Amino acid sequence: MSESHPTFTTELRVRYAETDRMGYCYYGNFAAYFEVARVEALRSLGVSYKDLEDDGVILPVLDYEIKYFKPAYYDEKLRIETVIDSLSGARIHFTYKTFNEQGEQINKASTTLVFVSAESQRPMAPPEDIATRLFPAYNN
Amino acid sequence: MSESHPTFTTELRVRYAETDRMGYCYYGNFAAYFEVARVEALRSLGVSYKDLEDDGVILPVLDYEIKYFKPAYYDEKLRIETVIDSLSGARIHFTYKTFNEQGEQINKASTTLVFVSAESQRPMAPPEDIATRLFPAYNN
Amino acid sequence: MSESHPTFTTELRVRYAETDRMGYCYYGNFAAYFEVARVEALRSLGVSYKDLEDDGVILPVLDYEIKYFKPAYYDEKLRIETVIDSLSGARIHFTYKTFNEQGEQINKASTTLVFVSAESQRPMAPPEDIATRLFPAYNN
Amino acid sequence: MSESHPTFTTELRVRYAETDRMGYCYYGNFAAYFEVARVEALRSLGVSYKDLEDDGVILPVLDYEIKYFKPAYYDEKLRIETVIDSLSGARIHFTYKTFNEQGEQINKASTTLVFVSAESQRPMAPPEDIATRLFPAYNN
Repeated sequence: MSESHPTFTTELRVRYAETDRMGYCYYGNFAAYFEVARVEALRSLGVSYKDLEDDGVILPVLDYEIKYFKPAYYDEKLRIETVIDSLSGARIHFTYKTFNEQGEQINKASTTLVFVSAESQRPMAPPEDIATRLFPAYNN
Repeated sequence: MSESHPTFTTELRVRYAETDRMGYCYYGNFAAYFEVARVEALRSLGVSYKDLEDDGVILPVLDYEIKYFKPAYYDEKLRIETVIDSLSGARIHFTYKTFNEQGEQINKASTTLVFVSAESQRPMAPPEDIATRLFPAYNN
Repeated sequence: MSESHPTFTTELRVRYAETDRMGYCYYGNFAAYFEVARVEALRSLGVSYKDLEDDGVILPVLDYEIKYFKPAYYDEKLRIETVIDSLSGARIHFTYKTFNEQGEQINKASTTLVFVSAESQRPMAPPEDIATRLFPAYNN
Repeated sequence: MSESHPTFTTELRVRYAETDRMGYCYYGNFAAYFEVARVEALRSLGVSYKDLEDDGVILPVLDYEIKYFKPAYYDEKLRIETVIDSLSGARIHFTYKTFNEQGEQINKASTTLVFVSAESQRPMAPPEDIATRLFPAYNN
């Protein structure tokens, strides 16, 4: 049930480097923002993505999609709400909503990532302790 | 008919700045690559996106989606095939396919952009001369 | 006297997007980090760089230099110490030191920026209220 | 003698992603441009930086400095002139000049890089065949 999926909140401020001549936060920068948001979501579950990689598990992105409702502007503090909404085999799916300082939702997005063994470069089920942290009720 | 839509080809090489510690071209960088590809597609049709903006028309992105089949690596010369597949009211839709040096398709993507008046910040039909360059058979 | 120049501290974490295939934070990313650091330094003095721009004053960078002692790595929380060490005519000079989580200084850098009128695109003395916030003892 | 140092020319166009709300190419992006310029300079001497890394030699940057004379703007095709002006022990020094489409020099910059063994993470003399390609008259 979706209500069993906690929402993780990350805040970040739009940097000058991230603006474009239209005066907006460049549309391509949100991919990096969502990466920050999901890494912080994992961290709040006790999972360090850095440690995961150091243990030989990488998490490349399989797909990414975003719909923009409004632009973000320079120096705005954005709030990103992240939900880990499924873990199936080697795949994990995140959804994101971004809100501006006025509380307006400015976009929604999702990514599918896949657990891959850095050594074999092949998909793998996530380590069991990771899986249970991500989904306490998860059974391999 | 889709066969009436020409394909525009852009080549670009993955920069060191664009790699990540996984050794891949960072997943978020493709949005900028596709922006380059669509600007070059427009240029080859005689439309300068810069001039369009200087004339008060901006083209923000409404949605973007990408599916990754394989990673791109440092120093690879990628080929992006861009198709402008529809123009409807103020909206224009592009699709992209990226190929690596071995000729393998490594991802597919699409974006919807909207013609917006910089002054009013409201959607607008594209200037007629632009529309007919983009779609010779286009009737407003 | 240099001892009269306060030090402003900003923390930020190295994003995955900012790493490179060497496993380091890409050398070019520090320019954006220092921009964040100096904007936060200004903010802590009651000066919003965004408001300054909205009032028609821009602050382009005239020169930038950096010496790297050690790399920064993914997910490290860096501490940047910023000093505004001089304001002379239209020019303002910042120095920066970056420290890693172990407290080691990993680089030092400086930038000179110039107050420019957005309208005339010419250098200008900073607005007096800004100048006195930056340097309480400053006399035009 | 400096006249013995050839100049390598690289052209690249300012991407929309690289602009900022001031309408300029963001000051921090030149570091990536110079990386492209020096990699192309090496390539024209028969040295693939990628192959060098694959052979276990990395070339981190020790210092970087840039003076900006004029901004670069969106869609401008810039010309970067690169000179490898010294190779001393493990260190190699590059200088760069950037010109806009009007032929005006818009900045000058330099970087010092160091040959490092990826395995030992310690500085090393460059492989002899590399050194002699970079400086035909070079004697270790």
